[in-house]
Amino acid sequence: MKETDISRAIIGDYTKQITEYLENDVVIVGAGPAGLTAGYYLGKAGVKTCIIERKLSTGGGIWGGAAGYNSIIVEDPEILSEMEITTREEGDLYIADAVEFATGLAYRTRQAGTKIFNLLEAEDIVVKNNRVNGAVLNATGIRMANLHVDPFCVAGKFVVDATGHPAEVVNMLKRRKPDALANKIGEGFMDVENAERGVVEKTGEIYDGLLVTGMSVCAAYGLARMGPIFGGMLESGKKAAELINDKL
Amino acid sequence: MKETDISRAIIGDYTKQITEYLENDVVIVGAGPAGLTAGYYLGKAGVKTCIIERKLSTGGGIWGGAAGYNSIIVEDPEILSEMEITTREEGDLYIADAVEFATGLAYRTRQAGTKIFNLLEAEDIVVKNNRVNGAVLNATGIRMANLHVDPFCVAGKFVVDATGHPAEVVNMLKRRKPDALANKIGEGFMDVENAERGVVEKTGEIYDGLLVTGMSVCAAYGLARMGPIFGGMLESGKKAAELINDKL
Amino acid sequence: MKETDISRAIIGDYTKQITEYLENDVVIVGAGPAGLTAGYYLGKAGVKTCIIERKLSTGGGIWGGAAGYNSIIVEDPEILSEMEITTREEGDLYIADAVEFATGLAYRTRQAGTKIFNLLEAEDIVVKNNRVNGAVLNATGIRMANLHVDPFCVAGKFVVDATGHPAEVVNMLKRRKPDALANKIGEGFMDVENAERGVVEKTGEIYDGLLVTGMSVCAAYGLARMGPIFGGMLESGKKAAELINDKL
Amino acid sequence: MKETDISRAIIGDYTKQITEYLENDVVIVGAGPAGLTAGYYLGKAGVKTCIIERKLSTGGGIWGGAAGYNSIIVEDPEILSEMEITTREEGDLYIADAVEFATGLAYRTRQAGTKIFNLLEAEDIVVKNNRVNGAVLNATGIRMANLHVDPFCVAGKFVVDATGHPAEVVNMLKRRKPDALANKIGEGFMDVENAERGVVEKTGEIYDGLLVTGMSVCAAYGLARMGPIFGGMLESGKKAAELINDKL
Amino acid sequence: MKETDISRAIIGDYTKQITEYLENDVVIVGAGPAGLTAGYYLGKAGVKTCIIERKLSTGGGIWGGAAGYNSIIVEDPEILSEMEITTREEGDLYIADAVEFATGLAYRTRQAGTKIFNLLEAEDIVVKNNRVNGAVLNATGIRMANLHVDPFCVAGKFVVDATGHPAEVVNMLKRRKPDALANKIGEGFMDVENAERGVVEKTGEIYDGLLVTGMSVCAAYGLARMGPIFGGMLESGKKAAELINDKL
Amino acid sequence: MKETDISRAIIGDYTKQITEYLENDVVIVGAGPAGLTAGYYLGKAGVKTCIIERKLSTGGGIWGGAAGYNSIIVEDPEILSEMEITTREEGDLYIADAVEFATGLAYRTRQAGTKIFNLLEAEDIVVKNNRVNGAVLNATGIRMANLHVDPFCVAGKFVVDATGHPAEVVNMLKRRKPDALANKIGEGFMDVENAERGVVEKTGEIYDGLLVTGMSVCAAYGLARMGPIFGGMLESGKKAAELINDKL
Amino acid sequence: MKETDISRAIIGDYTKQITEYLENDVVIVGAGPAGLTAGYYLGKAGVKTCIIERKLSTGGGIWGGAAGYNSIIVEDPEILSEMEITTREEGDLYIADAVEFATGLAYRTRQAGTKIFNLLEAEDIVVKNNRVNGAVLNATGIRMANLHVDPFCVAGKFVVDATGHPAEVVNMLKRRKPDALANKIGEGFMDVENAERGVVEKTGEIYDGLLVTGMSVCAAYGLARMGPIFGGMLESGKKAAELINDKL
Amino acid sequence: MKETDISRAIIGDYTKQITEYLENDVVIVGAGPAGLTAGYYLGKAGVKTCIIERKLSTGGGIWGGAAGYNSIIVEDPEILSEMEITTREEGDLYIADAVEFATGLAYRTRQAGTKIFNLLEAEDIVVKNNRVNGAVLNATGIRMANLHVDPFCVAGKFVVDATGHPAEVVNMLKRRKPDALANKIGEGFMDVENAERGVVEKTGEIYDGLLVTGMSVCAAYGLARMGPIFGGMLESGKKAAELINDKL
Repeated sequence: MKETDISRAIIGDYTKQITEYLENDVVIVGAGPAGLTAGYYLGKAGVKTCIIERKLSTGGGIWGGAAGYNSIIVEDPEILSEMEITTREEGDLYIADAVEFATGLAYRTRQAGTKIFNLLEAEDIVVKNNRVNGAVLNATGIRMANLHVDPFCVAGKFVVDATGHPAEVVNMLKRRKPDALANKIGEGFMDVENAERGVVEKTGEIYDGLLVTGMSVCAAYGLARMGPIFGGMLESGKKAAELINDKL
Repeated sequence: MKETDISRAIIGDYTKQITEYLENDVVIVGAGPAGLTAGYYLGKAGVKTCIIERKLSTGGGIWGGAAGYNSIIVEDPEILSEMEITTREEGDLYIADAVEFATGLAYRTRQAGTKIFNLLEAEDIVVKNNRVNGAVLNATGIRMANLHVDPFCVAGKFVVDATGHPAEVVNMLKRRKPDALANKIGEGFMDVENAERGVVEKTGEIYDGLLVTGMSVCAAYGLARMGPIFGGMLESGKKAAELINDKL
Repeated sequence: MKETDISRAIIGDYTKQITEYLENDVVIVGAGPAGLTAGYYLGKAGVKTCIIERKLSTGGGIWGGAAGYNSIIVEDPEILSEMEITTREEGDLYIADAVEFATGLAYRTRQAGTKIFNLLEAEDIVVKNNRVNGAVLNATGIRMANLHVDPFCVAGKFVVDATGHPAEVVNMLKRRKPDALANKIGEGFMDVENAERGVVEKTGEIYDGLLVTGMSVCAAYGLARMGPIFGGMLESGKKAAELINDKL
Repeated sequence: MKETDISRAIIGDYTKQITEYLENDVVIVGAGPAGLTAGYYLGKAGVKTCIIERKLSTGGGIWGGAAGYNSIIVEDPEILSEMEITTREEGDLYIADAVEFATGLAYRTRQAGTKIFNLLEAEDIVVKNNRVNGAVLNATGIRMANLHVDPFCVAGKFVVDATGHPAEVVNMLKRRKPDALANKIGEGFMDVENAERGVVEKTGEIYDGLLVTGMSVCAAYGLARMGPIFGGMLESGKKAAELINDKL
Repeated sequence: MKETDISRAIIGDYTKQITEYLENDVVIVGAGPAGLTAGYYLGKAGVKTCIIERKLSTGGGIWGGAAGYNSIIVEDPEILSEMEITTREEGDLYIADAVEFATGLAYRTRQAGTKIFNLLEAEDIVVKNNRVNGAVLNATGIRMANLHVDPFCVAGKFVVDATGHPAEVVNMLKRRKPDALANKIGEGFMDVENAERGVVEKTGEIYDGLLVTGMSVCAAYGLARMGPIFGGMLESGKKAAELINDKL
Repeated sequence: MKETDISRAIIGDYTKQITEYLENDVVIVGAGPAGLTAGYYLGKAGVKTCIIERKLSTGGGIWGGAAGYNSIIVEDPEILSEMEITTREEGDLYIADAVEFATGLAYRTRQAGTKIFNLLEAEDIVVKNNRVNGAVLNATGIRMANLHVDPFCVAGKFVVDATGHPAEVVNMLKRRKPDALANKIGEGFMDVENAERGVVEKTGEIYDGLLVTGMSVCAAYGLARMGPIFGGMLESGKKAAELINDKL
Repeated sequence: MKETDISRAIIGDYTKQITEYLENDVVIVGAGPAGLTAGYYLGKAGVKTCIIERKLSTGGGIWGGAAGYNSIIVEDPEILSEMEITTREEGDLYIADAVEFATGLAYRTRQAGTKIFNLLEAEDIVVKNNRVNGAVLNATGIRMANLHVDPFCVAGKFVVDATGHPAEVVNMLKRRKPDALANKIGEGFMDVENAERGVVEKTGEIYDGLLVTGMSVCAAYGLARMGPIFGGMLESGKKAAELINDKL
Repeated sequence: MKETDISRAIIGDYTKQITEYLENDVVIVGAGPAGLTAGYYLGKAGVKTCIIERKLSTGGGIWGGAAGYNSIIVEDPEILSEMEITTREEGDLYIADAVEFATGLAYRTRQAGTKIFNLLEAEDIVVKNNRVNGAVLNATGIRMANLHVDPFCVAGKFVVDATGHPAEVVNMLKRRKPDALANKIGEGFMDVENAERGVVEKTGEIYDGLLVTGMSVCAAYGLARMGPIFGGMLESGKKAAELINDKL
């Protein structure tokens, strides 16, 4: 019977994937610009990586540009060029189309070999011997439907918090170990140059096994919210990938 | 001042785009699998086309696979191959990764030259001299926030209803002209082969200037809901593009 | 690593179960009193049966008794006795504890070999050659979270509508084939004796491959809503099982 | 008239039950795995016990397994065997069916003589002379409907907090007596072995007349959230029953 | 123990009341002005009557006067005088205080011996041999909390629909027997004199065993909505009581 | 005491106003562009007029322009010039600022002597001898808060439906007298010229005492929804005022 | 015209009342058992008093008894007897009907001359020279509809917080003057005798011009929540009235 | 084609406006009475100013008067006279019509040359070198629809917090720099004279580049909430304009 063959193929394939990725070199939480870029470079380097994305779609804040004007600005088109995402020069800046950017980034990351699981969300982390080494996942639908259902675990030698503004993974750690991280409130408000630079500089491991990248850097260190520029996000993701690669 | 330069670049670029696409050869409503495929082939053929997508993200039902098991089944990998989306053979079927499929399809459509506007939704159509020749759009945020704000118009020699199950554009026509379309309730329930074939067969112009493609075909003709197979969607989109191309 | 072993065991086992039950002799939709009883007798007879339940918990309206006074009344304790559910005589009636009844019924059904999948819901049926032969399922969480995700299919030689008051499966058939079933509005209001008798009498196949049992009988035939008595439900479920058994 | 006889029998029986259980040896709040197991062993030992459950159904987090993959893992099948709940060996682990487990556990608890009141919730505790000796209850429907209605009381020589993650009863005590319990934030994250062991070890009386069991132990002592394993829950419930039994 | 004595007294007393009123001469659904007045005169005449009120409080639309200006106008103060509710003359009209009116009316009805059950709502009626002879009740909290729980029944030689604008009981009858009542759409819009007169004239038995009174008269006969005048409501309730009294 | 003096002055003044306007020459329902313009010209002509507006603010759809681009287009600036609202020529069109337009229109209407009551909404109409001669009003807050409170009445020799798309007043009439108005579904879709002309042409009395103006004309006659142009609205409002003036 | 005469009479009468009660001897916030009793005794003593009640109906928690079992228990029937509310002896306790109690209490309070304004709520207090001397009121509907509308003031030589569990008026004072009241967390949990006694003992003036009565006493002093007994509420209300009477 | 010409004109004009106002002398956040008055006087003085308003309509709390009694009280009619808004003397006070006041104030502000952008909201501020010099804006619809979309920036030499009770801009500063402003809780409750005087006195620059006006003054300095008087709001707005004018 045809329909059940299709059901069997889909369920079987998904199970094979999820089972294969129960153990990883790297678990990235969040498929926004920084998480995807980190996944892209890790995939290219042959590191076994999966990205956990709560929503149906990847791309995070890229889709909407600024206040819905969905064009994207970067100062340096290099990373986008590498991914074959079109940019147009406009004065000192480069403009990309938000939809092409959002989809091209995930498409290239997938083709680089990194697995992306959407509709799953991290609700906790696994810590052993003072080292983060996994994430506790549940299905988005179950959480949104407010059902009382337990989670399951995936292991990773490194976990990357790429959840953006809320820095959710960092906050899971803080809930468990309030003193693990001193929250250093920064000074800079929305000042593009400083913010872009700061995000890249502070990208890295803030606790054994846990890295922050992209807007999660801002949230973790109390930096200011940045506006609709994505250059720093991409560089931060690339840097996170390089740091991990060095350690593996 | 740096931040306002970025704001100016983004707003300026978006306005240029939206203004350029106030007049089109084809306006596709809905950026799911059929709408994107139609847009891809129209773009490739050099037809001036824009796709209107209500949500932030494109891809419609592709992301979630079947019940969240996000693998995708097609019987014929040809269209996906053309778009460089990876498929794996599994018996008689071909499996693709839902995230790669969803993002690759929009990415290729954009690179083929078709413009995609997300966060906009069609709330009515323009009909002149018994021919559909445009759509009435509003911002998604405004509608979701329930604000009392009027829409604006985009013109198109053809409008394509690729809204999926609800066949929203067809229903706008029916609301205006209850007798314009006889709703022929079909017989077929969820039977994969018949459904896939039926969708492709009935893809086409159902009113002067208005075509249906993908699941909108089912909704318009009362066919059964199909499950998580996407081959027919892609072929339907391709056929819609070819039909329009012939008429232009 | 311990946690991922557990994840692997759980996911692996569930996948084995769901894959095994993609093809069935009988698919029962709804794990209330009638659906569970049908499942119990089918399981005892060695018929391959699965029950699809939308909620986390089985038992339907049993848990709450009448208006929350959670005692259960039956006139004939025979079926409950067979399942080792305690009853106490009280005049002409027998009283059971709602919690013991609700849990004992599902427990015995499971031990009789019938599989119960909770957190799945039927959103359509499969009809081929004018015969119902399967159901289209989606995850409860996905529907409750209002996510745009396609369903998958399970096949069954018979499908049993045990969804209760709404008679959901019957209505899926009516939506597809408005003339398939003449809705004969009955006369009887809430009159216990007539209602209990009517439910059992009209239990059976109302379309090729589709049976109704329990409150779905009332909804399908326009009978009156019955109150908090469950004897007729159990007998109706038992009769449905016997009718199917005869045909297989 | 038949219908009112049924109404009379149901209301009369429920009132007899609720009135009988206004005074108890033990009041358990929460009918999840730990609460039910405690109730099972107390019932077996002939201790007058009632379980208060807010929802319609008992079983708590058992029904959904892990993220909806509803199979259950235990390391030691002994308690389940005693309750005649089927387990299958899988390597070092034992797998049970979530539905059979959830229903079998409550069914056996009821048959052991412990009363379960669903649709009631504890909104406060009774404390006299620095000893917890009862709970303040209201109807679930009334609270969910946000109606301004007062509660009533049930007395118990011991009250058991088996409310799970929120440790609601412990928090009622803390609200009244902020200094009554020092909250000792533990170190262990989601590490199965330590968590399972910790839950059992710390099960016991944390204030005169008040015991914690199951996930409430974690919440009360700041231990980590455990995943979808239920062995520790059952042992914790059994230990709570034994501790109470020793004191009575 | 003091608290449980109070619980016992309250639960015991309520059960005695609800059990006593399972069988009635008259069941009035709705404790607004017409229902209460009917109950008052039936109580005074020694007819065994209970009123079923969905909300916590009785009085319906009396409390808010007109658009929250809570003064009440009647043309004839006689009924209010009989109930010792203060009125002040103002030209041709009499003004009463809304709070005094709303509370005095229920207070006098109770003292006349009619029982009022609040927090219960009718969800269906009992019809036997083409005569309404009871109502199917559920707890308000359970319905508002959307819990799947069955109802129970109360019997009455007569049932009075005093539910106001929706005429809910009449609609239950229509749902069961679509042809039982011809809906005669009236002509009169909001014209005080005609409306007040019409309500009283058409008060009476519209089906064997079922009477309408107050605004339910308007809804049943398609009369216009009246404004904030209550004289007709009171007279309609009184007339309903007299008609029933004559038949008993 | 100062604060209560202010309270007294405000309550006293409002009561004087609302009492004065219980009887009117004209009651306009809706303070959007057409209703305000009608009110402006009626006020200028010395006709006693009040406008009933459901929301806190007047201006209806003017504020948001098109999809939030809040500029306003008119073809003929005459009416705006008369009201001293700034317009700028742009090709064949005139552009006004949405905020200046929305506020200037109400400001001029008030200064012309027409009273505007916001926070009140019409929930029905008064019809006597087959002539509309008033509206039934309630407080917006009461309706939004879903409180069971009766309305009050205002009288008018003419009532104007200026409620826009829903044509609410016309629908109140239809609910009462389904045959009073034949609903002539028009042909025109969104075609600016035809729509603007049609609105003005069909502005007028559609039932004794009831006029339609602005978008209510479209809704009443089944014309197409127009986009963000306001010239026809203003002319329609002016024409309604002239028609009434002729009849008084 | 008849309808507008009624509107005029209602609006005129309400305005006269609200204006008369802008200045009071006593403003009681909350029309539950304590507030109404205080109002009853103040009215009887000829003190100019108004009660502000947020809801449509008065009576607070009286209507629902305990968990919806709506019988009321008091130990001493004296106050109820004085108000001609029926009580029945049951052992050491007296039982009253919740509906008769709730309505009789407000009815007698009104007849004693105290004004009750429902649908108004206090959102702040007026403090001058370190003395509470008024309340800041808004319409319930406006607050529930979330409309941005300012309040107005009523003056009172004394303000009584009878808002029950939340002690809202006390909290308004604390928000303004965090140090004005030391919050003395009490020890007693739900222990009927102590609680009833404590409520009466601590009834009184806690800040110049501000008294607490009923459950507000518990909330203000951190006493335990009491269950469904109302004797202490009535005595507390009576005591508040006496204390004020002595000071005037 | 006519419709797209209109779309083009509207979009083009709006883009020109928003682009022109990316850089300003003054950015006022909030178009209530104080913000509009400040904008009016700045506009008159030729200062380049834009006002950012979250809602569709301007006017803030003016529309509803006190509790919906929509008359407005001022002590000194001077500013209103200057704007040609009608006032009537009533004893020592002046009464204005709320609708005329709300609309006239914005109308005059626009005509004075100050731009008002509605449907935009500030979600953050820009701070450089310890000076506020801009605001971070997003579309209201996007925020209300809960969409994940980034903001854009506007620059201003001064930013004025005219957001009213919440003092939102001040709170953005506090979130970034908790120590920047000492929150001096004031003493005054709702005492009209003191409050009106206090608002005007404390109007001014509280951080380099950031001024507070109107109710934001109260919120920033912990002053009491004022009632429905608007004289102080207008004077505060005027003073803010003068202070800025002196510094430019």
